[in-house]
Amino acid sequence: MRFCPYCAAPLEKKVPPGDTLPRFVCDACQAIHYENPKIVAGCIPEWEGRILLCRRAIEPRSGYWTFPAGFMELGESMEQAACRETLEEANAVVEQCRLYSVVSMPRISQVYMVFRAQMAAPTFGPGTESLEVALFDRGKIPWGELAFTVVARILRQYDADAKAGRFPLYVDDLF
Amino acid sequence: MRFCPYCAAPLEKKVPPGDTLPRFVCDACQAIHYENPKIVAGCIPEWEGRILLCRRAIEPRSGYWTFPAGFMELGESMEQAACRETLEEANAVVEQCRLYSVVSMPRISQVYMVFRAQMAAPTFGPGTESLEVALFDRGKIPWGELAFTVVARILRQYDADAKAGRFPLYVDDLF
Repeated sequence: MRFCPYCAAPLEKKVPPGDTLPRFVCDACQAIHYENPKIVAGCIPEWEGRILLCRRAIEPRSGYWTFPAGFMELGESMEQAACRETLEEANAVVEQCRLYSVVSMPRISQVYMVFRAQMAAPTFGPGTESLEVALFDRGKIPWGELAFTVVARILRQYDADAKAGRFPLYVDDLF
Repeated sequence: MRFCPYCAAPLEKKVPPGDTLPRFVCDACQAIHYENPKIVAGCIPEWEGRILLCRRAIEPRSGYWTFPAGFMELGESMEQAACRETLEEANAVVEQCRLYSVVSMPRISQVYMVFRAQMAAPTFGPGTESLEVALFDRGKIPWGELAFTVVARILRQYDADAKAGRFPLYVDDLF
């Protein structure tokens, strides 16, 4: 940030009165511009013991596999965001969403919030951001071709939980 | 947003190619400026069956009670954010944090992520954003003087869970 989005004056980074952290402050219009972490809402869609993964068609990590996930938008709930991403990236409709994992990634200021959900039907296909969408047996998850560390971490936990037959909430930090 | 924070050119709100939602787009430097929901990290600090609440010294809802909570900052985990807010607003140190409630508020594009935690000691006091901090027996929560609907909703659930003797994850949407 270099210029005030409200009045176009140059911004200065400084600690506002009463605050403890440096912010982008506009001396012209007095606005303070905060930056905050973003929520990535995701979904592990399940169908008869298999899970639905997408091969990314976009950077970063184009060509690698992930569960449907993306930045939560203004005006939606977390569950709505997870269902929307599943529809957009995998053309799959899900129901019975249950929050499954919450992983903070302070270095990139993101929090992954991932639901488990049941597919309403075994119908799916690649959206514009996916090259390919497929159902995987849990024994055949493409571990060497996953897009991000956080995806691997959550799917490893999922795999262990599936073997144990229970899925407690998984809260973790990836520093 | 009216001006590009990178180059100060006027912004236009339009759907970028390949996107589905209108964004603030800069025709001069091609930047797309996304806006996303914010996470409010909170904590219900517990001490021998009582919980610690703060009376707000700042608007909105100055003079009303809440558990410690505030916007998550860049570069921290959710648990770190909840502990920091507890220290800043109530001068209390907490440990054994467990994620307790996740409440989406799509109308204001916020998600409340609230932990239960044990106070390390019964020491506390008002930070700069609090008028007063006090431990409340669960039977004496100031229901009529709570700051926000979401605070009341979470504390009602907490009160019911405490009576039942178990605290399952509480996921809800406040539309």
